[in-house]
Amino acid sequence: MQILDHSKSRELFARAVKVIPGGVYGHLGPAEGCFMPVSAYPLFSSKAQGAYFWDVDGNRYVDYMCAYGPNILGYGDPDVDAAALAQLKDGNCVTAPSAKMIELAELMVDTVAMADWAFFCKNGGDTTMFALMIARAATGRGKVVLTKGGYHGVAPWTQKSGHPGITPEDVANNLYVEYGDFEALERLFREHPGEIACFMSTPYYHPVFDDNRVAPEGYWQKVRALCDRHGVVLAIDDVRCGFRLDTAGSDKHYGFEADLMCFCKALANGWNVSCLCGKDSLKDAAGGVMYTGSYWLSAAPIAAAIACITKMRKIDAARICTEKGKKLTSGLAAAGKKHGFDLRISGEPAMWFMRIADDDTYELHQAWVAECVRRGVFFTNHHNLFMNTAMTDEDISFTLGVADEAFAALAKNGPAGAGKGR
Amino acid sequence: MQILDHSKSRELFARAVKVIPGGVYGHLGPAEGCFMPVSAYPLFSSKAQGAYFWDVDGNRYVDYMCAYGPNILGYGDPDVDAAALAQLKDGNCVTAPSAKMIELAELMVDTVAMADWAFFCKNGGDTTMFALMIARAATGRGKVVLTKGGYHGVAPWTQKSGHPGITPEDVANNLYVEYGDFEALERLFREHPGEIACFMSTPYYHPVFDDNRVAPEGYWQKVRALCDRHGVVLAIDDVRCGFRLDTAGSDKHYGFEADLMCFCKALANGWNVSCLCGKDSLKDAAGGVMYTGSYWLSAAPIAAAIACITKMRKIDAARICTEKGKKLTSGLAAAGKKHGFDLRISGEPAMWFMRIADDDTYELHQAWVAECVRRGVFFTNHHNLFMNTAMTDEDISFTLGVADEAFAALAKNGPAGAGKGR
Repeated sequence: MQILDHSKSRELFARAVKVIPGGVYGHLGPAEGCFMPVSAYPLFSSKAQGAYFWDVDGNRYVDYMCAYGPNILGYGDPDVDAAALAQLKDGNCVTAPSAKMIELAELMVDTVAMADWAFFCKNGGDTTMFALMIARAATGRGKVVLTKGGYHGVAPWTQKSGHPGITPEDVANNLYVEYGDFEALERLFREHPGEIACFMSTPYYHPVFDDNRVAPEGYWQKVRALCDRHGVVLAIDDVRCGFRLDTAGSDKHYGFEADLMCFCKALANGWNVSCLCGKDSLKDAAGGVMYTGSYWLSAAPIAAAIACITKMRKIDAARICTEKGKKLTSGLAAAGKKHGFDLRISGEPAMWFMRIADDDTYELHQAWVAECVRRGVFFTNHHNLFMNTAMTDEDISFTLGVADEAFAALAKNGPAGAGKGR
Repeated sequence: MQILDHSKSRELFARAVKVIPGGVYGHLGPAEGCFMPVSAYPLFSSKAQGAYFWDVDGNRYVDYMCAYGPNILGYGDPDVDAAALAQLKDGNCVTAPSAKMIELAELMVDTVAMADWAFFCKNGGDTTMFALMIARAATGRGKVVLTKGGYHGVAPWTQKSGHPGITPEDVANNLYVEYGDFEALERLFREHPGEIACFMSTPYYHPVFDDNRVAPEGYWQKVRALCDRHGVVLAIDDVRCGFRLDTAGSDKHYGFEADLMCFCKALANGWNVSCLCGKDSLKDAAGGVMYTGSYWLSAAPIAAAIACITKMRKIDAARICTEKGKKLTSGLAAAGKKHGFDLRISGEPAMWFMRIADDDTYELHQAWVAECVRRGVFFTNHHNLFMNTAMTDEDISFTLGVADEAFAALAKNGPAGAGKGR
């Protein structure tokens, strides 16, 4: 297959770096320390449709990052976009909200198993912050327990003391526990009686640079009982997993019920809205926290979310993503085996993580991912990937063909194939 | 004039309150303590165009809240919306950013006098938080000086200890100073040598429930020199004022140069984007802070911002808003005088504040505002108002007619006219 050229991306990057700190931001930017083999990557897109995006050099990619999650029904889904465009004609960002906001809240309550109410904001991080504030308002306590390696946005309290721009006070109320370690959690609760407002966790463990893990059988049910016993609010950050494991919520998927659930990403197939859902017991506390934003009432993304949820339910998007993910990942592992590489697949098939085993430096994996990207399959090397419902069997076949070639190149060139610099 | 009926708004509110904490949020919600005469207000909109929105009962309002700021060119501005819709066809929220992001960054640098670079996020509060993190990363210091009564979003550090959901640690690094009091600021800098990372302020003082004030002559120039002397980053929160005082930035308007400038609201006429601009001296620090979000690369709002800025520059939107504001506010004050009320106008004409003087309870003012809203002029009682360029002389005449009737009703009914409850 053709090795793609990225000349225009590089020309644009030279322009970008003059007026944007780092040139690009996020995972390909300078701040994240993601050890991406950046030289293999396109940096700017020109078009997106269905399972693909095209870069500014005209190359097409089967896109397994899905805009880092939002793309669940395929870029430019006609039903979602039609709903948003119809709403745009009536109004979007207006002084008073549209009644569509009520409709979406009712739909969330009907869709998400644990939800008695819904509240809409913009970033995933808006919802995790609001969840924590509600838990503090409701309990009168300050501390929050987080899992090590968890990600809940970029607000200072979600980062680590010593990271650029973070003060010790920002994280003074944080306690940390290993994901899935119930005994350690119980010990923390015992050691801080009456101090812990909230336990916040993703429904399963999907850190960067590490195998993803589902909690041990019975873990969440024990956590639920423990939180009840100690009066701690159980907040699940479903920003990344939401709607890809179960349309009714990832807590439902794992057989428990959270007090607060954070949604964003797949909620509106890329239209800009996030949502916190909660139980009735926390509704007054939520109403009492001062929380609002300039665009939070905007009706077009809300109309998009209504259409997106309706379609995800109708087609059972979570099941489709899971089945396609299983097919793809088993094929990828087989392609690795053929060339003598143990490609370890972990996490949920709808949003799997993979790495070449027995290489703690990740250099082999980086090189393989670079070879895939150069041939039109957009993977990252450190982050979970995402499936969407627009992926076809042909896309999966194409991907497996690229993976095969990339493993062959890796067997020939070794880690050097990753390339250096931008 | 007709007294408007809000039956459908109330029916919808009864539905909303079941599934949304407080039913509506923001200034008409339960958390803000804005003492709005809520019973006079429509709660849900059905349509917006130009200077107007229509509520769900079909009533039209001349809207002086402008979606709390974003509406500067009129709702549904054809040039801005055409640019966004064209971009939507190519792609919006995609794994890799569009080159439009570079174009917008270049346009910001060309437009905003102090700007060497630009960085795009979603909320106004995303930009104030990022500004503070950059200042901390650059200086290695933790403290921030804020003005009392200033508003920089809803993140915990911007609120007060004791507010629902806020911990003492959230605000442990905050120092406060009265707006415009240079000696007090100098004293704080002296008392905390080497500890203060940032002085953050709005360009002029626009708190709620208080006359708005422009800083004394020479204040900002002295502040600039003081910050330089102490190595403190000067961050201006131009989220609310941005592009309504001067398209080149409100620091330019007041004759100084900030190190960091926060923009949102009027940036894209309601399309969902915010922007931090900075000086070259802080570019590396900005690139080193981990800061990103799910929708931050979305290209449609970026295309909208390009069109909005281009049009604001072309028509000199700030001048238009200022001139229309002067005409309106002098008419409003005259209408008050005619009925024996001293309507005190303060702040900048493009986004003025007003209150009936000699009534510290604000009850007379609330009642007058309620009478205006009931007749189709959307004012709030506690917050600055906003002009937009779509306001016509007829809109201003209509508004002055309503104001006259409302003052007459106030003279007759007194504070009782505000009405109670929802």
